[in-house]
Amino acid sequence: MVRWGQFQMDVVKRRRKIREYLREANAAVFLVLDVDTIRYLTGFSGSDAVLLIAREEWGEDLFLCDSRYTFQAREEVQKSTVREYRKKLDGIKDALEAAGVRDVAIEAHIVTLAFFEKLRESLPEVHLVPLNQSLAGIRALKEPSELTFIREAIRVASESFQEVLPRIAAGAEERQIAVELEYAMRRRGAQRTGFDTIVASGDRSALPHWTAGRRKLRPGDLVVVDFGASVNGYNSDETCTMVVGRPSEEQEKIHAVVLEAQKRAMHAIRPGVPLAQIDSIARNTIQEAGYGAYFGHGLGHGVGMNVHEEPQLTPDVEGTIEEGMVFTVEPGIYIPGWGGVRLEHMVAVTAEGCEILTYLPKSLISC
Amino acid sequence: MVRWGQFQMDVVKRRRKIREYLREANAAVFLVLDVDTIRYLTGFSGSDAVLLIAREEWGEDLFLCDSRYTFQAREEVQKSTVREYRKKLDGIKDALEAAGVRDVAIEAHIVTLAFFEKLRESLPEVHLVPLNQSLAGIRALKEPSELTFIREAIRVASESFQEVLPRIAAGAEERQIAVELEYAMRRRGAQRTGFDTIVASGDRSALPHWTAGRRKLRPGDLVVVDFGASVNGYNSDETCTMVVGRPSEEQEKIHAVVLEAQKRAMHAIRPGVPLAQIDSIARNTIQEAGYGAYFGHGLGHGVGMNVHEEPQLTPDVEGTIEEGMVFTVEPGIYIPGWGGVRLEHMVAVTAEGCEILTYLPKSLISC
Repeated sequence: MVRWGQFQMDVVKRRRKIREYLREANAAVFLVLDVDTIRYLTGFSGSDAVLLIAREEWGEDLFLCDSRYTFQAREEVQKSTVREYRKKLDGIKDALEAAGVRDVAIEAHIVTLAFFEKLRESLPEVHLVPLNQSLAGIRALKEPSELTFIREAIRVASESFQEVLPRIAAGAEERQIAVELEYAMRRRGAQRTGFDTIVASGDRSALPHWTAGRRKLRPGDLVVVDFGASVNGYNSDETCTMVVGRPSEEQEKIHAVVLEAQKRAMHAIRPGVPLAQIDSIARNTIQEAGYGAYFGHGLGHGVGMNVHEEPQLTPDVEGTIEEGMVFTVEPGIYIPGWGGVRLEHMVAVTAEGCEILTYLPKSLISC
Repeated sequence: MVRWGQFQMDVVKRRRKIREYLREANAAVFLVLDVDTIRYLTGFSGSDAVLLIAREEWGEDLFLCDSRYTFQAREEVQKSTVREYRKKLDGIKDALEAAGVRDVAIEAHIVTLAFFEKLRESLPEVHLVPLNQSLAGIRALKEPSELTFIREAIRVASESFQEVLPRIAAGAEERQIAVELEYAMRRRGAQRTGFDTIVASGDRSALPHWTAGRRKLRPGDLVVVDFGASVNGYNSDETCTMVVGRPSEEQEKIHAVVLEAQKRAMHAIRPGVPLAQIDSIARNTIQEAGYGAYFGHGLGHGVGMNVHEEPQLTPDVEGTIEEGMVFTVEPGIYIPGWGGVRLEHMVAVTAEGCEILTYLPKSLISC
């Protein structure tokens, strides 16, 4: 497990990156409002707070919260002065006025237009500098301690899946399988599921974002199970496809195409390769097999404190793969009325390629 | 249960209110991006889409989504033309350009600054009109069919609590209680929990936003359990406080103060009364008893498709109570190091007062 001293060192390193970023953006302070990013930079696991990180260190960075969270903040928050506010906007105003700063960076993809307007009204002297995806880029590169947390989330999810697997059989209801899987993850230490569990059977398996309904599994059904655990603030996200009873030739064929697409994509992953290229390797494999019209979503997405974070693997995304990225590789073929197959594994980018973190079976499981 | 025809009639009525709102705001189209509001106005239960509602009806309103959701949208979405996009921004742009509209209302408390900037760049001809809390105000007034859904969520949560109650006893771990309660709610039909279940025991009960940890219940502990089910898109949110074994005199006294604060506040609820007044009735009761310093949060909040929505009941909120509002009344006393008591009931405002929806025991339960 990750030790506490390690976390404190990580926090110092992360904030150093933020300070570099502030120098580039020419801002004196970073006003952090995203709770996941606040957790990343302090250790605070509550759901409402403000963090102010100064480019030139002010002694300590400032963590602000209301009275509901003060005790928790004093226990959890690392390397920051904890201060209580009655109203968030006033807390921010007081802190920035006391510091006398003018240029304040904010997270453009987090702050709502309404809150932005309130900040502007309440701080007429301050120049707000919207930053795009900056912290998301930093958070995309996982440190070894974060990989440990992600592995733990994957372990919880995978063991839970193994436990529930015998219950995935003809006659079982989609939502009953989802409920049991979530219960198994919670019992093993998940704080919650990362997202609503998907158990999509029969023709529903052709719907990539179906959740789990009242339908009962029947012989011959494809069953797509997409699930994730959130443990210590980090997520897993993986998908298995099964068939109830003996797979048909067509089911086997389509499964083999999806598996081949996933393998080829994973094989090409290494630092320096464009993200879009990995998507297109999988997409071309599916297209060559004649199923190009049935793969409508991106190939993958980063996973960490959020289930969906940077990087995105889509046909027209910019940017390249970097060591430390953790993302899903999840090609699929979805044929309306017939069914779908999706295989989703998580990988961590290493210096020379990638490590497959998921240890679920890749074969078309008969259940 | 709510019948489908009823839902369609509700949808027509809700959109009529939106169109009135658009006339006041002098906008031709409402660009709805909040998925809860989209569900409210269409029935769509997926997690990503766009809805365009025109002030002057265009034939039908436009529902836009990507290919992951098209099938689901065609099954679920009422009273709209469903159209698929590859990229959200392009889908919006194409629809607005085809309609030739200039003034487009957006939800200022939902749209992020980054997305707002992208909209502006991609639609230079369009004038974006940010609306504050407009739909929130409409959604705050529940229709009879919505009350049926909320009652159902409360029933699921309450029966689950009754099931788990015997397990809340000395030796049980906080998180184990939370896991069992969530499992019970899921089995009874909850799609998910509305929020992370709180089981806060001993000194942790003094932390209003503690979740549930590894602590085991001990004789004499106060135990605050705050939980909610999400059923058919509607939430419940309720809190019980228990004591392990026999309550002490001080525990009984503080419980009685909180109960009295809640009773007096509920008694004063009726249309036309300022929201802030209800908060202050409870707050004064606690203050008069000498515990004013130990009630740090607002008295309540609206509950519906979101666990926290309009109205807010806080000391300085504006606005008055209206018939059809559904909100929590949740006074508490939290003494650091000693423990806390919170009682949270949901109420629905009627023509003359309020109906208490929660049917959990109000007394200090010994467990």
